[in-house]
Amino acid sequence: MNIPNSSFPRIVIVGGGFGGIELAKKLRDKEVQVFMIDKHNYHTFQPLLYQVATGGLEPDSIAFPLRKIFKYQNNFTFRVAKATAINSDKNELITTIGPVSYDFLVIATGSDTNYFGNEEVQSHAMPMKSIPEALDLRSLILQRFENALLITDPEEQQALMNFVVVGGGPTGVETSGALAELKNHVLPKDYPELDIQKMQIHLVDSGERLLQSMSVQASDKAEKFLRSMGVNIINQDRVLNYDGNVVSFMSGKTMIAKNVLWAAGVKGVTIDGLNPESIINGNRIKVDEYNKVIGHTNIFALGDVAAMISEKYPFGHPGVAPVAIQMGNRLAKNIIQNINGNKMEPFNYFDKGSMATVGRNKAVVDIGFIRFQGIFAWFVWMFVHLLTLVGFRNKMIVFINWIWNYFSYDRGTRLIIRPFKSRQ
Amino acid sequence: MNIPNSSFPRIVIVGGGFGGIELAKKLRDKEVQVFMIDKHNYHTFQPLLYQVATGGLEPDSIAFPLRKIFKYQNNFTFRVAKATAINSDKNELITTIGPVSYDFLVIATGSDTNYFGNEEVQSHAMPMKSIPEALDLRSLILQRFENALLITDPEEQQALMNFVVVGGGPTGVETSGALAELKNHVLPKDYPELDIQKMQIHLVDSGERLLQSMSVQASDKAEKFLRSMGVNIINQDRVLNYDGNVVSFMSGKTMIAKNVLWAAGVKGVTIDGLNPESIINGNRIKVDEYNKVIGHTNIFALGDVAAMISEKYPFGHPGVAPVAIQMGNRLAKNIIQNINGNKMEPFNYFDKGSMATVGRNKAVVDIGFIRFQGIFAWFVWMFVHLLTLVGFRNKMIVFINWIWNYFSYDRGTRLIIRPFKSRQ
Repeated sequence: MNIPNSSFPRIVIVGGGFGGIELAKKLRDKEVQVFMIDKHNYHTFQPLLYQVATGGLEPDSIAFPLRKIFKYQNNFTFRVAKATAINSDKNELITTIGPVSYDFLVIATGSDTNYFGNEEVQSHAMPMKSIPEALDLRSLILQRFENALLITDPEEQQALMNFVVVGGGPTGVETSGALAELKNHVLPKDYPELDIQKMQIHLVDSGERLLQSMSVQASDKAEKFLRSMGVNIINQDRVLNYDGNVVSFMSGKTMIAKNVLWAAGVKGVTIDGLNPESIINGNRIKVDEYNKVIGHTNIFALGDVAAMISEKYPFGHPGVAPVAIQMGNRLAKNIIQNINGNKMEPFNYFDKGSMATVGRNKAVVDIGFIRFQGIFAWFVWMFVHLLTLVGFRNKMIVFINWIWNYFSYDRGTRLIIRPFKSRQ
Repeated sequence: MNIPNSSFPRIVIVGGGFGGIELAKKLRDKEVQVFMIDKHNYHTFQPLLYQVATGGLEPDSIAFPLRKIFKYQNNFTFRVAKATAINSDKNELITTIGPVSYDFLVIATGSDTNYFGNEEVQSHAMPMKSIPEALDLRSLILQRFENALLITDPEEQQALMNFVVVGGGPTGVETSGALAELKNHVLPKDYPELDIQKMQIHLVDSGERLLQSMSVQASDKAEKFLRSMGVNIINQDRVLNYDGNVVSFMSGKTMIAKNVLWAAGVKGVTIDGLNPESIINGNRIKVDEYNKVIGHTNIFALGDVAAMISEKYPFGHPGVAPVAIQMGNRLAKNIIQNINGNKMEPFNYFDKGSMATVGRNKAVVDIGFIRFQGIFAWFVWMFVHLLTLVGFRNKMIVFINWIWNYFSYDRGTRLIIRPFKSRQ
């Protein structure tokens, strides 16, 4: 491959998510060559994908060109490509644009939607892990209401307006809340001919409570918020199948719905050629406390795809941005230590807390033992997300949209730019 | 079709462009039923499509949901649909969602790219008349540079970086200028490994001067601006063919280029079933001074698709937004006059002037006999476009982007969200 020459050790990073970016940034001015590939030419701010899907934000304001992040970093090279395999004997990564040799390989590929092997669900349910997927969902939601107008059969109409959100984690909670706000504030004005009360939003969760990774207080309050907004919460049940029309539950219940949003799980995006023993449940890559992949000496993994099992985190760390960022930060130092022949330091996650938003003035925040919910939590949520968003222009645009949405009760970008056809 | 009942005369409008919107708005509170269809659920602000294509604006800020424009207009109904035929004997419009009867039919379908029957050009050149097309072009431009990085053959690389813009009207001029700004300010930082001077921008125009609809002063200055920015202007020549690799000119010249942007002409988007004599050159619909289609009593056409031939406008009016808006305004009054049995008034175009922008601080403006160019013209251009843009949120977002682009010399949305594959 046509890569600039360098006499320094080459660190190849697969993926420009939170972890990959942090790692590459921290290697600036170091005597290494950083080579990153990503299948997109931009970084995706995943925590706000649900707002794109529900017409609250334009896609371009949560995406940031990867080249732009690194435009003043001379030891950085980027290519749009997918990794297809690792040839660890030759220290070579095989990609869609040819092989690239590495001294250190870092897998920062993140996670993708997990349908747990159910192909029927996979062909009919809507995922939301990338910007194109969020845009497909935005189109679909709006198309359903356009279609509902053309139909007189009440059952068919009901099916078009039935939304089943599967998964009670932050994504499921936030998406259900955003759909409820569309129902309560936006759609009645857009579709005066439809009885918008027919729009039903069901949030399905297999556990006893939503937001299981947060405190009981946060879960309780989130449920209360969602119920007050008209979301029907189905606890302790699972979606077993979905054929595009009928949702089948583990409890034996069925439901007719044209819209199933799948936020029930993720799996790591791995690359062929790793030590088979390193691939564990959830398709994640088992790493040691230095993020080194088990069975390899110069291959690392971080973020969602990495499973660093410890006493404190028997299932690995949560799949959130701060873990990926902190791992990227630590790994940059460790790789430099390693090159200099010094000892690496184990990763130690500093948990700043977690939060989720349900709707306007409605969020839940846990910071250690400090827990609060409601309007102040909502402001904290917005503030933290604005701060984390990459790029000043994006921060400004998102901020203006939020102010606009708040005062107008509106969602300005309800556009069907590319109509969604089918995932099959 | 499932349309709300109304005892008032039904006015069916095909197309939610400038003309269709103005007409529908002016019929508010009148004793008529307004029924609009459009293939999109949004209005497109076409004058800024080139900024979407060149990464300066997000698509969502130049699109506005049609339902939102009319959310407080009770006599208005909208459906996403395409018109397929007119059955004028039965006063019926056939659409993709079924037939709809009308008392008055207004064709406001606008125009589409005209390849003058050359199918090879049509399959390989890029058009820019809709938001999806502008997004395809944005992806294509960025993909070409990503691809150029992977190639060592200098000729192949040159072909990837060769841009031929065909057509010296405002779209061609504005697009060439925007490409030149990408070349001069943005791409060198994004692609330090490429020799960006290899990027060539050729603007091809068959006439003696660019911007023929404007004053000679404006044309001269626009050419001067473009040359100073590095655009190569090819006057008095035509592109005869393009096979995806080689551009063939009427002069016998050929040029190797992977990118041909076609802004050389438009044609009206008509609907089958009209009096054949009403369809004239450029696929436009011949109308009388009341916008009534020749040979019909209750079918009207306005905007780009309408050709209102007069002594002052022997080829019809220019295909610009003010013509469509003024026609919509006049037609609304005329239809009401007609319903009330009163005489209609002939359309009279008030030409407020014309303008085009080339780059930062570089625009040309003609207002009657007042002509000015440069930075003040550029501010006037921005001010007028901001005012005309539909929606406060859109105005804000565009304004911020422009301020950002101005001070940073940047184009923030250079994202390949949906990679462009091929038009074939």
